[in-house]
Amino acid sequence: MNDSPTPARSSRAPLVAEALGTFILVLAVISTALFAAGFGEGTESANKGVGFIGVSFAVGLALAAGIYAFGPVSGGHFNPAVTVGLAAAGRFPWRGVLGYVIAQVIGGAVATTLIVLIGLFGPTGWLSTVQDGGFASNGFGSRSPGGFEMGAAILVEALFTAVFVLVILGVTHAQRGSRAVAGLIIGLTLAVIHLATIPIDNTSINPARSIATAIYGGFDALAQLWVFLVFPILGALIAGYAYRAMFGGAEEE
Amino acid sequence: MNDSPTPARSSRAPLVAEALGTFILVLAVISTALFAAGFGEGTESANKGVGFIGVSFAVGLALAAGIYAFGPVSGGHFNPAVTVGLAAAGRFPWRGVLGYVIAQVIGGAVATTLIVLIGLFGPTGWLSTVQDGGFASNGFGSRSPGGFEMGAAILVEALFTAVFVLVILGVTHAQRGSRAVAGLIIGLTLAVIHLATIPIDNTSINPARSIATAIYGGFDALAQLWVFLVFPILGALIAGYAYRAMFGGAEEE
Amino acid sequence: MNDSPTPARSSRAPLVAEALGTFILVLAVISTALFAAGFGEGTESANKGVGFIGVSFAVGLALAAGIYAFGPVSGGHFNPAVTVGLAAAGRFPWRGVLGYVIAQVIGGAVATTLIVLIGLFGPTGWLSTVQDGGFASNGFGSRSPGGFEMGAAILVEALFTAVFVLVILGVTHAQRGSRAVAGLIIGLTLAVIHLATIPIDNTSINPARSIATAIYGGFDALAQLWVFLVFPILGALIAGYAYRAMFGGAEEE
Amino acid sequence: MNDSPTPARSSRAPLVAEALGTFILVLAVISTALFAAGFGEGTESANKGVGFIGVSFAVGLALAAGIYAFGPVSGGHFNPAVTVGLAAAGRFPWRGVLGYVIAQVIGGAVATTLIVLIGLFGPTGWLSTVQDGGFASNGFGSRSPGGFEMGAAILVEALFTAVFVLVILGVTHAQRGSRAVAGLIIGLTLAVIHLATIPIDNTSINPARSIATAIYGGFDALAQLWVFLVFPILGALIAGYAYRAMFGGAEEE
Repeated sequence: MNDSPTPARSSRAPLVAEALGTFILVLAVISTALFAAGFGEGTESANKGVGFIGVSFAVGLALAAGIYAFGPVSGGHFNPAVTVGLAAAGRFPWRGVLGYVIAQVIGGAVATTLIVLIGLFGPTGWLSTVQDGGFASNGFGSRSPGGFEMGAAILVEALFTAVFVLVILGVTHAQRGSRAVAGLIIGLTLAVIHLATIPIDNTSINPARSIATAIYGGFDALAQLWVFLVFPILGALIAGYAYRAMFGGAEEE
Repeated sequence: MNDSPTPARSSRAPLVAEALGTFILVLAVISTALFAAGFGEGTESANKGVGFIGVSFAVGLALAAGIYAFGPVSGGHFNPAVTVGLAAAGRFPWRGVLGYVIAQVIGGAVATTLIVLIGLFGPTGWLSTVQDGGFASNGFGSRSPGGFEMGAAILVEALFTAVFVLVILGVTHAQRGSRAVAGLIIGLTLAVIHLATIPIDNTSINPARSIATAIYGGFDALAQLWVFLVFPILGALIAGYAYRAMFGGAEEE
Repeated sequence: MNDSPTPARSSRAPLVAEALGTFILVLAVISTALFAAGFGEGTESANKGVGFIGVSFAVGLALAAGIYAFGPVSGGHFNPAVTVGLAAAGRFPWRGVLGYVIAQVIGGAVATTLIVLIGLFGPTGWLSTVQDGGFASNGFGSRSPGGFEMGAAILVEALFTAVFVLVILGVTHAQRGSRAVAGLIIGLTLAVIHLATIPIDNTSINPARSIATAIYGGFDALAQLWVFLVFPILGALIAGYAYRAMFGGAEEE
Repeated sequence: MNDSPTPARSSRAPLVAEALGTFILVLAVISTALFAAGFGEGTESANKGVGFIGVSFAVGLALAAGIYAFGPVSGGHFNPAVTVGLAAAGRFPWRGVLGYVIAQVIGGAVATTLIVLIGLFGPTGWLSTVQDGGFASNGFGSRSPGGFEMGAAILVEALFTAVFVLVILGVTHAQRGSRAVAGLIIGLTLAVIHLATIPIDNTSINPARSIATAIYGGFDALAQLWVFLVFPILGALIAGYAYRAMFGGAEEE
């Protein structure tokens, strides 16, 4: 979220930072979703499960942590849609997009791979049950937690990613932004988006997160993955260009 | 919440910012209320629903996000009662009130319209059930979640809007305010107000939010709407004038 | 929490600020406890109730709001134990204590009086049921939510008030404090204290809050009130003197 | 989290600060876990229990409070793994480690001792039931809340402690860190870690917290304690050295 990161040790440091930040974000949200959200379901301990609200704050606060910890090195995107949206708004060079996206996808996939590894030491049958349940991957139709169809997933991913990118562009604006708390607000905005939309499609708005879970979520998850690649990116592009049209681009500031 | 916003691209930018901020606020609170609050009700997954606490944080944190993202353009009211309260306290010009209120009402109504659109792709019967249930509109009597009468709604709306406006006037005070965290505190105050009062009348304290839901909540919601227009405004007016009387107006600072 | 408040309009402004801040704090915590915590108990909607976690964040965030909104006028104590603890630590003049305490007690009592008024418009029997249940007043023995005896209440009130005052003294320290976020941290500390101790005795650590509920909680609540006056004050005194002994008083800084 | 603390009254002040901060952290997390997390389990009041989400925020926000209150005196570690990780990264002198760790272990043990004392005034049988249940100590196998084996505990402790230390090193970096909000972000990161991992092994990532509960959790808790001493430290060491390799050490800044 930082246009002019402090120079770090090597030119590869921003890619390491993007991979690491995405790793932490995906580790937080998927661990919470798989280990803790439904804890005690169907037993007297059900009131201890952290539910979708726990998942929402886990992902939002993990993003905030990553932005403050590694953002000064890379800008703290941790999300291909954010990288694309910032490029569309003229805040990030288009030539840097591919490298960032690759680093983000790798970071996310390493996170879910480690969760699978931890799951090997789970209760008998835990890992296969979780994988049969889709491994918290994004989905619609019979794979939507609340039974919403593909149209709802498409609308939600485009709309909420657009909102996310608009907020990011506002709070990190060179003149009008709020440096000190911007990272916290961006993280909390991601929490709000999850609070509102997990029941629709498990909430992506981040293709790296969607890929990271789909690769362990079975054939159906992979077959639906394209929606969670295309529409977050589309929403981010629209938001990036719209922000410039509404409030002016970086060149005027 | 900012008396002297940084000049933006065009003179219409503040109205766009007010519409956009109110759009995000209403989108967050009503999506969470309709999609996520009661998730799994009556099933083993009930512990995953985000409940009224999820709704409270969704609306509060969405407000904070909007204030930091668009507040420097428009002041970040996103609420007709706040605009009126600031005018009463001498912090916003009365001649700007009407334009702001129109922008806020439009922003809120677009948000609920998009939620209806998403709902068209919900499970069979979802949208009509939700609309028959009032579409999360504010209400009293048989439409109060906890069965409270009109008198309770009137007292709650006037009282809690007054508290909200007093807090806003304090934290954005030119000499005594806390610029860096003011937006976060204002958002968290809105969360507290929702934590305390959703069971009374679904919590308005924001006529734009009330209009946005009443238009999709059926005849009864529309018939009760006036309470959620009149009393938030009344509470805000009282708070605006009272703050000046207690702690001094802007002209003395 | 501010040793040298900006001069306000009149010399009575600090007392108004203390009354108003305590009013908001008590209004938030008791409204949430009575209206929202147990919402839907025994029905399918039980997952919407905000529970003790909702009460904890309501009181903590209301305190933070009050500190930023009115703290620059009065110091933002809103709690007789805090006022006494700051005096013991040499951060507040002893001669100002009585006035502050009276303002705080009045502010708290007005808040619960308004909640009673709202309750008159509740569902049939709501107010009498709530008052028979103690009106969220502090208590032990048969009046403890978790069945803890007086010894537990005494230990908890003295210990957690001492922790609260130590944190306040640290974060508002003239040289070592963190001005910008101090109010937020103080509020969140109060939330933590409630998360940990509501089941013991409904958590006081604030005699003004205890008085405000006891006056509407029936004879038994009044009979136990002394514990929630004496031990928060005792804990605050110990913390005030101990902080000076451990880390130095204001005079050396 | 502060490399050059402001000189305090005596040379023992940093040790007092570390003991006090760890005391507050352990008091918050274990009180919440034992008094409040499972409140009402098996009754209609189960929706009032704060669950694992309450425990997560209690520990995270208590850490943030401690960092702002006492961090300027000692650096605000409150955790042997953090002290070791900072030393490995070149941010804290190795010769100071032993004293800090002893202070932290004492602070944690005093906290659980006071909880035992409070528990003596609990409902009949409360304390023995809680101790038979392990006193919220960390564990695996039959002692894991979710039934995870030792391998899962080992992976989780090493991995999440490493993430925690990486975030700390990032947000407190002399040039790239965020002084004003660093303590809040560190606390919220600890909350996220608990949201994600309590069901695995009750979450340690802090040997002082593990010791504090194991001493009251019975023979089995003590027999498993070594895992929660070794692997947090191991994860912290790896993170400390890895951060320097990836982003440069303090000497270059």
